[in-house]
Amino acid sequence: MPRGSYGDDSPIAAFATVPGGSALTLIRCSGKGALELAAGVFSAGEKLLRAQGNTVLHGWIVSPGAGTDPADDRRGEKIDEVLVSVFRAPKSYTGEDGIDISCHGGAAAGTGVMAALRAAGFRDALPGEFTFRAFMNGKLDLTRCESVMELVSARTEKGRRHAVSRLSGVLADEIDAVKKKLVEVLAGAEIFLDYSEDEIGMDANEDAGLLPGKPLAEEALARLRKLAESWRRERIYQEGILAVIAGRPNAGKSSLFNLLLKEERSIVTEIPGTTRDWIEAWVSIEGIPVRLVDTAGLREPGDPVEAIGVERSRGLLEAAELVLYIMDGSEGITGEDAAFMDKLRQTAQQEPRTLPCIPLWNKTDIAPLPASPETACGRLLGVSAKTGEGVAELTVAIAEAAAKIAGQAEIASGSGDPQGAAVGTARQKNLVEAAAAALEEALALAEQEEPLDLIAPLLRESINLLGEITGEVSTADILEEMFGKFCVGK
Amino acid sequence: MPRGSYGDDSPIAAFATVPGGSALTLIRCSGKGALELAAGVFSAGEKLLRAQGNTVLHGWIVSPGAGTDPADDRRGEKIDEVLVSVFRAPKSYTGEDGIDISCHGGAAAGTGVMAALRAAGFRDALPGEFTFRAFMNGKLDLTRCESVMELVSARTEKGRRHAVSRLSGVLADEIDAVKKKLVEVLAGAEIFLDYSEDEIGMDANEDAGLLPGKPLAEEALARLRKLAESWRRERIYQEGILAVIAGRPNAGKSSLFNLLLKEERSIVTEIPGTTRDWIEAWVSIEGIPVRLVDTAGLREPGDPVEAIGVERSRGLLEAAELVLYIMDGSEGITGEDAAFMDKLRQTAQQEPRTLPCIPLWNKTDIAPLPASPETACGRLLGVSAKTGEGVAELTVAIAEAAAKIAGQAEIASGSGDPQGAAVGTARQKNLVEAAAAALEEALALAEQEEPLDLIAPLLRESINLLGEITGEVSTADILEEMFGKFCVGK
Repeated sequence: MPRGSYGDDSPIAAFATVPGGSALTLIRCSGKGALELAAGVFSAGEKLLRAQGNTVLHGWIVSPGAGTDPADDRRGEKIDEVLVSVFRAPKSYTGEDGIDISCHGGAAAGTGVMAALRAAGFRDALPGEFTFRAFMNGKLDLTRCESVMELVSARTEKGRRHAVSRLSGVLADEIDAVKKKLVEVLAGAEIFLDYSEDEIGMDANEDAGLLPGKPLAEEALARLRKLAESWRRERIYQEGILAVIAGRPNAGKSSLFNLLLKEERSIVTEIPGTTRDWIEAWVSIEGIPVRLVDTAGLREPGDPVEAIGVERSRGLLEAAELVLYIMDGSEGITGEDAAFMDKLRQTAQQEPRTLPCIPLWNKTDIAPLPASPETACGRLLGVSAKTGEGVAELTVAIAEAAAKIAGQAEIASGSGDPQGAAVGTARQKNLVEAAAAALEEALALAEQEEPLDLIAPLLRESINLLGEITGEVSTADILEEMFGKFCVGK
Repeated sequence: MPRGSYGDDSPIAAFATVPGGSALTLIRCSGKGALELAAGVFSAGEKLLRAQGNTVLHGWIVSPGAGTDPADDRRGEKIDEVLVSVFRAPKSYTGEDGIDISCHGGAAAGTGVMAALRAAGFRDALPGEFTFRAFMNGKLDLTRCESVMELVSARTEKGRRHAVSRLSGVLADEIDAVKKKLVEVLAGAEIFLDYSEDEIGMDANEDAGLLPGKPLAEEALARLRKLAESWRRERIYQEGILAVIAGRPNAGKSSLFNLLLKEERSIVTEIPGTTRDWIEAWVSIEGIPVRLVDTAGLREPGDPVEAIGVERSRGLLEAAELVLYIMDGSEGITGEDAAFMDKLRQTAQQEPRTLPCIPLWNKTDIAPLPASPETACGRLLGVSAKTGEGVAELTVAIAEAAAKIAGQAEIASGSGDPQGAAVGTARQKNLVEAAAAALEEALALAEQEEPLDLIAPLLRESINLLGEITGEVSTADILEEMFGKFCVGK
């Protein structure tokens, strides 16, 4: 099977759902000849060829009949009973002919169907290739494509609402509105450039510094700045924050981890990896996805495998955006505890970014908070991993820390407006910033009454950069890099 | 939302795929009024109500509009862009009206859509409730229902082929064929009982012992025995075997585990569980699913959490069906090694079932096998977890051990006939055995020339038991227990 490349229209297939212990598995196929190829491995092949778009057929996926070795006694063997949804270009996700196959869940059924599709001539789809084709065929602009990816990765209800807002076009509309204003300003400037000497009868050099529509350009700049600023908040909703639970052995790390999981169980999902040496889970705290890591399994290296584990945990602490440092209240703040917190504080001082730490005094059910609860990392928060006391206060503290990282208090208060336009990816944010920078320079030149023929190219650059956001202007390189980050099947 | 019960036709909804980091998530809805309820949370609601069966609509799931608090400003908010497949009774999986919703993947999108469906009036489906309804509405007999469950759980290609064979009706057909023969025998016996004295003019007592159609009954018995026997093999394909890697620290347990995973990576799936203290994965060895456990993380208990881990590992060894005991060849067979293997052998002698153990001599790349490779658990197999030497021999040895557990060699040779009828569940096997036992008793009575009115009830019992397998005869209790084992969404 040849490795494909983005941009061709060859028939592709991929799992669109995780083939696991679920009831069903969905496999997506798209491309030139997709219906004909699929008909070759479908028990009701003739019916499929005649089927109208947007209809569903019932039948069996069978091993390929024609064109394979007639001595193969598994030829035409039933592989799985399925539903096939037929889509005909251009009325499909990709804009091409395609089918969705709903087969039985579990690892083996889907694998068998995929094998039959490959034998029939489909190649495995590249990451994001379905959405890439949707873009190429004009079904989705780039901001909507990216919001598809965002939606799939959304870990909390708030994250979903923000992504859906972009999927429904709120960002694309805002970009287009700003761009329209800039086009208006540019058009005005170009009229001056073209006609000023002759028809309008003014000396070009005299009035060239007066940018017509300057207020419009200023409004556009303000809106771009607001968009760029939105990224700090959006990033938190998408990527979440990494919070590491640290502490001495037996301080109660695992109990705290389990307690936080239980309290905020909405999106507990374990991250796979057979060689993991720590335990982690995503929890939603005030709508912010928090990747919570329990380092309880870590100890001094005994054998080489463990040494690797400890190495990794050190990397974890370095990558952490928040440390929950838990101490055993019945033992007080030990020398080791004090040393750890001192080191954290020093690290925070050395680096431009402050690493927030919440020092936790565990076992308040048997050991009350000390009279002087200040530490090198701030005021102690009393909790009891056993009784659950103090956990509500802890989740508030975590949310506040996340808000600090996001650079604004509105996250913690939950007042973020999901319907307002906001950028959803670093790519969008960088382009918005570049567009704003070009526009800013144009306005500065206008302020200094520089000639319009110096200002106009900057306006044009700003407009082009905005066009790149939605994909009106794009290059193969940018597209490949963008869609390469998608999951396969999307 | 009221908790439902099997057997009603209220509208139900459930995830049919695992909502994870995949491209899409599939949600299934079925029941009385399902289309009307769904229309209330679908942007193209009117279109949905008018849609023909087996058609696909594009639109948005929105939060419920009518009937909810008008002060709710999230009313009618877009939740996700979806495809809705419409099914109209009786042409659907369940035989009821229903829809499949293909929404975006990721945790949040599916969760949002499910919340909207609940708000619209759907209740969460019970495990297996869709398939239960398919059975109640005559869409699937019980053996096919069970094969659906089997398919979802199938871990290897062979397991899938066996399940598909049952899904396509091979077992139901065989049961029906055997039952037909028994009905013929019973009918013949009843003619004798009804007419022998009068019309046929014979003395009833004289010839009553001659069971008409006895050869037919004997053929039926042979076929039932063959079916019951098939369970030993089928069970292995479905449930697999538990193989535990044991050995002293640093003997190479983890390296061997990783090597076996790499060699046989077809179905590596980790089993979730945040409190797991060992690492495990399913591997396919000659088509047999092997649950491979690496106990490398286990050591003497330091803190209470570890103590629990060690407790669990002891349970693991007790549950193991196969032990891969690995020794560090560079250190030879230590006293600890010898003691462990002795204990294994003793356990095996005490129990009726022999626990197979494969003793492994690791590091053959630097330490050659000893001249006398016999141990308490059999002949040493030389491997090198580092170079991969001996791993091919090891997989053959594991397959042979599995064959021994299955009680037949054909598994190892791979010659099992997936197209032949075989039982797929313990329930089916128990019913086949009970039917065979009743038939056996009937034949024994016939042999002793007992009167037909003693034999006929046994034939009737055997026929009824076979009817229970396909579900012609069934009780609410049996059904609830059976479908309760399904995953939700099936």
